[in-house]
Amino acid sequence: MANLLLLNGPNLGLLGRREPEVYGTATLADVETRLGKQAAALGHTLEAFQSNAEHELIERIHTARDSVDFILLNPAAFTHTSVALRDALLAVEIPFVEIHLSNVASREDFRQRSFFADIAVGTVAGFGVASYELALTAADRCLTRATP
Amino acid sequence: MANLLLLNGPNLGLLGRREPEVYGTATLADVETRLGKQAAALGHTLEAFQSNAEHELIERIHTARDSVDFILLNPAAFTHTSVALRDALLAVEIPFVEIHLSNVASREDFRQRSFFADIAVGTVAGFGVASYELALTAADRCLTRATP
Amino acid sequence: MANLLLLNGPNLGLLGRREPEVYGTATLADVETRLGKQAAALGHTLEAFQSNAEHELIERIHTARDSVDFILLNPAAFTHTSVALRDALLAVEIPFVEIHLSNVASREDFRQRSFFADIAVGTVAGFGVASYELALTAADRCLTRATP
Amino acid sequence: MANLLLLNGPNLGLLGRREPEVYGTATLADVETRLGKQAAALGHTLEAFQSNAEHELIERIHTARDSVDFILLNPAAFTHTSVALRDALLAVEIPFVEIHLSNVASREDFRQRSFFADIAVGTVAGFGVASYELALTAADRCLTRATP
Amino acid sequence: MANLLLLNGPNLGLLGRREPEVYGTATLADVETRLGKQAAALGHTLEAFQSNAEHELIERIHTARDSVDFILLNPAAFTHTSVALRDALLAVEIPFVEIHLSNVASREDFRQRSFFADIAVGTVAGFGVASYELALTAADRCLTRATP
Amino acid sequence: MANLLLLNGPNLGLLGRREPEVYGTATLADVETRLGKQAAALGHTLEAFQSNAEHELIERIHTARDSVDFILLNPAAFTHTSVALRDALLAVEIPFVEIHLSNVASREDFRQRSFFADIAVGTVAGFGVASYELALTAADRCLTRATP
Amino acid sequence: MANLLLLNGPNLGLLGRREPEVYGTATLADVETRLGKQAAALGHTLEAFQSNAEHELIERIHTARDSVDFILLNPAAFTHTSVALRDALLAVEIPFVEIHLSNVASREDFRQRSFFADIAVGTVAGFGVASYELALTAADRCLTRATP
Amino acid sequence: MANLLLLNGPNLGLLGRREPEVYGTATLADVETRLGKQAAALGHTLEAFQSNAEHELIERIHTARDSVDFILLNPAAFTHTSVALRDALLAVEIPFVEIHLSNVASREDFRQRSFFADIAVGTVAGFGVASYELALTAADRCLTRATP
Amino acid sequence: MANLLLLNGPNLGLLGRREPEVYGTATLADVETRLGKQAAALGHTLEAFQSNAEHELIERIHTARDSVDFILLNPAAFTHTSVALRDALLAVEIPFVEIHLSNVASREDFRQRSFFADIAVGTVAGFGVASYELALTAADRCLTRATP
Amino acid sequence: MANLLLLNGPNLGLLGRREPEVYGTATLADVETRLGKQAAALGHTLEAFQSNAEHELIERIHTARDSVDFILLNPAAFTHTSVALRDALLAVEIPFVEIHLSNVASREDFRQRSFFADIAVGTVAGFGVASYELALTAADRCLTRATP
Amino acid sequence: MANLLLLNGPNLGLLGRREPEVYGTATLADVETRLGKQAAALGHTLEAFQSNAEHELIERIHTARDSVDFILLNPAAFTHTSVALRDALLAVEIPFVEIHLSNVASREDFRQRSFFADIAVGTVAGFGVASYELALTAADRCLTRATP
Amino acid sequence: MANLLLLNGPNLGLLGRREPEVYGTATLADVETRLGKQAAALGHTLEAFQSNAEHELIERIHTARDSVDFILLNPAAFTHTSVALRDALLAVEIPFVEIHLSNVASREDFRQRSFFADIAVGTVAGFGVASYELALTAADRCLTRATP
Repeated sequence: MANLLLLNGPNLGLLGRREPEVYGTATLADVETRLGKQAAALGHTLEAFQSNAEHELIERIHTARDSVDFILLNPAAFTHTSVALRDALLAVEIPFVEIHLSNVASREDFRQRSFFADIAVGTVAGFGVASYELALTAADRCLTRATP
Repeated sequence: MANLLLLNGPNLGLLGRREPEVYGTATLADVETRLGKQAAALGHTLEAFQSNAEHELIERIHTARDSVDFILLNPAAFTHTSVALRDALLAVEIPFVEIHLSNVASREDFRQRSFFADIAVGTVAGFGVASYELALTAADRCLTRATP
Repeated sequence: MANLLLLNGPNLGLLGRREPEVYGTATLADVETRLGKQAAALGHTLEAFQSNAEHELIERIHTARDSVDFILLNPAAFTHTSVALRDALLAVEIPFVEIHLSNVASREDFRQRSFFADIAVGTVAGFGVASYELALTAADRCLTRATP
Repeated sequence: MANLLLLNGPNLGLLGRREPEVYGTATLADVETRLGKQAAALGHTLEAFQSNAEHELIERIHTARDSVDFILLNPAAFTHTSVALRDALLAVEIPFVEIHLSNVASREDFRQRSFFADIAVGTVAGFGVASYELALTAADRCLTRATP
Repeated sequence: MANLLLLNGPNLGLLGRREPEVYGTATLADVETRLGKQAAALGHTLEAFQSNAEHELIERIHTARDSVDFILLNPAAFTHTSVALRDALLAVEIPFVEIHLSNVASREDFRQRSFFADIAVGTVAGFGVASYELALTAADRCLTRATP
Repeated sequence: MANLLLLNGPNLGLLGRREPEVYGTATLADVETRLGKQAAALGHTLEAFQSNAEHELIERIHTARDSVDFILLNPAAFTHTSVALRDALLAVEIPFVEIHLSNVASREDFRQRSFFADIAVGTVAGFGVASYELALTAADRCLTRATP
Repeated sequence: MANLLLLNGPNLGLLGRREPEVYGTATLADVETRLGKQAAALGHTLEAFQSNAEHELIERIHTARDSVDFILLNPAAFTHTSVALRDALLAVEIPFVEIHLSNVASREDFRQRSFFADIAVGTVAGFGVASYELALTAADRCLTRATP
Repeated sequence: MANLLLLNGPNLGLLGRREPEVYGTATLADVETRLGKQAAALGHTLEAFQSNAEHELIERIHTARDSVDFILLNPAAFTHTSVALRDALLAVEIPFVEIHLSNVASREDFRQRSFFADIAVGTVAGFGVASYELALTAADRCLTRATP
Repeated sequence: MANLLLLNGPNLGLLGRREPEVYGTATLADVETRLGKQAAALGHTLEAFQSNAEHELIERIHTARDSVDFILLNPAAFTHTSVALRDALLAVEIPFVEIHLSNVASREDFRQRSFFADIAVGTVAGFGVASYELALTAADRCLTRATP
Repeated sequence: MANLLLLNGPNLGLLGRREPEVYGTATLADVETRLGKQAAALGHTLEAFQSNAEHELIERIHTARDSVDFILLNPAAFTHTSVALRDALLAVEIPFVEIHLSNVASREDFRQRSFFADIAVGTVAGFGVASYELALTAADRCLTRATP
Repeated sequence: MANLLLLNGPNLGLLGRREPEVYGTATLADVETRLGKQAAALGHTLEAFQSNAEHELIERIHTARDSVDFILLNPAAFTHTSVALRDALLAVEIPFVEIHLSNVASREDFRQRSFFADIAVGTVAGFGVASYELALTAADRCLTRATP
Repeated sequence: MANLLLLNGPNLGLLGRREPEVYGTATLADVETRLGKQAAALGHTLEAFQSNAEHELIERIHTARDSVDFILLNPAAFTHTSVALRDALLAVEIPFVEIHLSNVASREDFRQRSFFADIAVGTVAGFGVASYELALTAADRCLTRATP
């Protein structure tokens, strides 16, 4: 049994209310609830945290240091700009999966650089809110197998 | 119910025999069998094809045109070099997921460019053979929901 | 009649106290007051908000979603670094003008990239505090005409 | 009271006749008339000149040397290619505003380089023909205040 | 029946007199005559215009606006430098073919960028004066078929 | 009288069946037949070969060495990736024309580099299947004239 | 006698607890105490402030404006991303030294760009916590000598 | 005895009237007269031509074809932008020297590219109006010696 | 005693027949025979394989896995394009030497990148068919000494 | 107790005589004497060597191999150009600090690349001759502590 | 009357013996003698120094500090590589002309960067040994006129 | 019979004493003796020269001009920085082989550029001291055969 942390970056609080025809009508609270249940079914606990503030995400990662086994991270816009968040993850040495709702590869040039991809266990991108569930499944695999 | 095609590119025939401590001992045949069962459980059929030859993959995609609903594609080295494979996928207009065993983002510079990511539905990378199962789950979600 | 929001980014709270021979002696409060009057004269309301914190600007944009018709934005240093602020503006879909006190084009190389210019209605730059008044006039034009 | 010169570069003679649903139905003559009135109301004189020929614009700038106090310049396509026009402006040392009808920042890559922006007083871009009026207001501010 | 315009850019007036062992001895007048006959045989009319001056080419394009159906354009050196000519073609929205006597791809680096190729119907390059005749044939195909 | 070889690269076997509203309904067989007749009318013979496999195209070029006078080549996706095909053409020293159905210049960045253009006699691009006929006419000109 | 301000950026609160075999066991509090004593011995006062939040660092710099003579700054991850922090330092015009615990030059490519180095008095990097003491000595030299 | 042509590009008609403390008070007419005398003293004739129009310079080069032995060229701003002028010089095959009043190497980045330097006999730059006289001496050397 | 494999890439089957004045008249069969004898004289066995098909080379490398001690590889054009071949070599972990007939460094820009050089033991290039013999000598040294 | 070597590169022999208002009036001899005393006070010995010749610096490093524990290196202009000096330092494996009198980060672009920074223990730059003293202090810290 | 120094860089000692059909048969000694006479005729003295060693050139520049008024410099290969020589010239603050025998602009890419051009008074390049005489004339102009 | 010259660049005098487990225990003297014997056995003479000074290598090449038929060159660090050495080799026109002990292609980015490779006959790299012997064999082949 492991403790999981679901971290969501800036603007993701608008989920379900923005472009519902694209992203679906599930709100962030819905997603957090659903993931919590999925985690429980797998025998894990899951806490969730969203913030538009880089420092709050950093500090949440710091406090995760002794209690969290795996992080599910959707850095949103911070994917492309936050070295500080990268450094926080490097410091606490907690394995994590990078998650994206949309297919970042088909968007603007500046979205092609990620400060997280090369230090993540892996990436799941492009499947809308299903990306979260796939990432949780992936985390479960990593936690329950010797070789991820 | 949908027809799925699992396509594997060059050198993936060595799976299970090469660096088993990293990639596990499951061979490609094992993976194909396992995915077939997972597909059946979800109500789908799954065919599998691996080739080291670019033209054989292209031609398999052409014949998939009228019979396949979704492709699970691990282009391996062709990820970074094959415009012809990209064009085949564009021509048949079958949705596909890009799959990688390893975390490509942490490897050589020339592996940072993918000729498939921007036209894929999404990407799953870095979870070893579990990447395939996650991709199949993702495909199922795309096929059974209006909004992916 | 429209509701306008004047948003000012980091360090702009020092206006009037820093290099007054360059930027004039008008403080940010003076500018906000003046713009409020100009807006009223045009039949609009104008609220003003300044913050050195990226997340506070993002959240002010979120709350503007249902009540603001046009944003006058001087992103200051965030012009060149904040994808999160860009995403917030994309999410709420409120038209905005990008404003700069100085002629950014004649400054350092890293100031030549804006994360806002390509999604703004237009840009006004280089006229000191008059840039704000011109931007308000521009906003008024956009709001009262079919073709901006 | 100051003498202003409105300079328009190549293809702007088509204004009002090309894509009226985008740029409006005002012709260049209409714009020139309107600006002349706006200038007069502010106590200034305004002359207008349009040419598709780089050398004619250069020569108009040369003759402006002793009689013009401020230039309103829409260099159009020359924005991105004419060092000679830049040199003419540097030689006569008349302050000028760079004007664009459209939001250049959202167009082709080669339009991102301006040979004028770094030596202009400032820039107004993206507001259609209203860009001219805003630029004239900006010029008036520069002329009547010590600190622009 | 359509009206065609053959436009030739700078230095092409020297055709037939410069390096005849490379470009043949046909002068520009010869080419224009020959193309005129070819056009007539196809049931079209063809006017021809050559200039070393960018603005004259721009203005010829402007006047073509209501009377010309297709342009055969050899921009010569302007291929690589004239945004203004590009803008003129975009403004009048007349389809055109880009023509080159020599194989531009085997020449200097700066000749690898064309400001016309991406907005042309197509390109014919490398066949000496025969390039013109091929381009006229191509134009005829475009004009007489629904799908070019 | 000359022997011509029409070579078509990967995915071109789908011609006529893919996006007929764009490329027309003529299949590759139709094109080959039509070109054969056109060649015969000009007094030449024409053989045709299409392959999705780089090595088959290379080997067809090798065998063309002593029997073919001119090649009509549409390298399709190999345009941008195949140095081996380029080397085959350099080795046999048979003149060739580079052909493209679409206007490559208006497509993705990676399609802007051709491994063939600088060693071809010339290029015909953008006219759909008519590109082939124009290329054949061009080849005939090159073969029947001293100076192409 | 001068007033010094020691500013530490994101993640530095973990000092002494993270990789102690590399960075030593001294915590940030230890470092701050030690520097305070060193400053006192040199006849100066020293205040210390650490934050993971960019805006808090910016605001601490603003309030330093009238009371601080020299800043000792370890921007940590903000070194490579924060134009706003740079602008704050430019606004208050307080001389500062840029400090790094590790040898940044031997790390990732994106760490080679500093938004502070070119406006700092100088740099001390690579000596672990001793970097702070060297920087304080350097600051003392700058403050007590006419030519730094 | 040889016929020389002195060609001056855009804005050079202002010589002597612009920044006389930098470029001296000699006007272009003065320079042309002085060079004419220097040429005569060396037994040559010299004609002079200045234009702000690229096409006029091109046409002057065309007419020089049969009558001029050497060109002294100050392309001014066209140095960095005119491929058409380069092509004119390549077409007439008259040797020429590239001349600059100022030290171009110490100016803006975009002035570091010359479209003439690689096809010129040589370059003289940085000596004010003396650059012309040195270039004329250089031309005389080239004309009177077998090996320049 | 070791088992060696001589692998030759695309177009090398033309050896001896193409530009014999440059590459000599020895055919690939001659080279293979000669190398076989040289290997035997050193106490090794040598097998040879040439293919124009990337997949055949890949598969030959796979089968070499358990039986070959060292590979002599001339990847020809695949040097610059085949990540799949590189991956095959990485997978089987057989040491190899990269061989080139010509001096690649003096050829086109795109030939300056090798996908093999950084993972090869070493490189021999520029000595025509003698490059093979030198490479075989080099392989023998590597095989018979502890430190290569 | 350790043996230190102070190495100074080209042009540093002019110290104290060149721009004394910037660098102070201390000559290189003064600096060497002062550092010698500072070293003695810390219980170390210090030898000093300056040369304008790359090979003399290389050879001094070679002879330092068995007798020197730490190098204080101001490579001056060789910072940006000497791979040979870098290789000498790599060969002898003596730890060293990179020193600069001026703030290199605020100078020309070509000074932003150092061939030493990534293999140095650390860097001290920008404090005039005080940079040397800080570097000596830093070296002492490195020598007397297990973890620098 | 002024003291001039003629400095020649590496490989220039071969002048007159290497490719005499290109560079003429005048040896470096001949050139130095000729320049000495030309200098005397102008009322100046001229010393000459050639070295293949960067440090000898640097040291010659150092000793020139108090006795030389102008330097004629042909840095040869050091043009593109020696920051140390540049720094020596910056330190002594003696004006200099950069000289090249050949037209560097038409040679290899790496010869397009000069470490001297932007700090020289001017450049003379491409006229063989006559370049030296033109440079001496240029130096004389600079020395005898207030504004060069 | 030919005269060969073995030239070794900076830091190679340390051979055998530095990292013997990598490069073996053979000193440079050992290598020179061994190569001398190998040359004699092939009927050639061989002289050897090593220097850490660029100018000494240049001058050794100059004196080789009339007496040496082939150079074996290991430029070491000068590979990446010395245009002067390149120019010396171009001047004397003696064929040479470029030699490297290590596999340069797998090292730092700045080692990927060689100023010698494109003008060498060929390259041997990566085989430790055996690289020298292979290069000598290669030289012998070049000297004794018409086509290298």
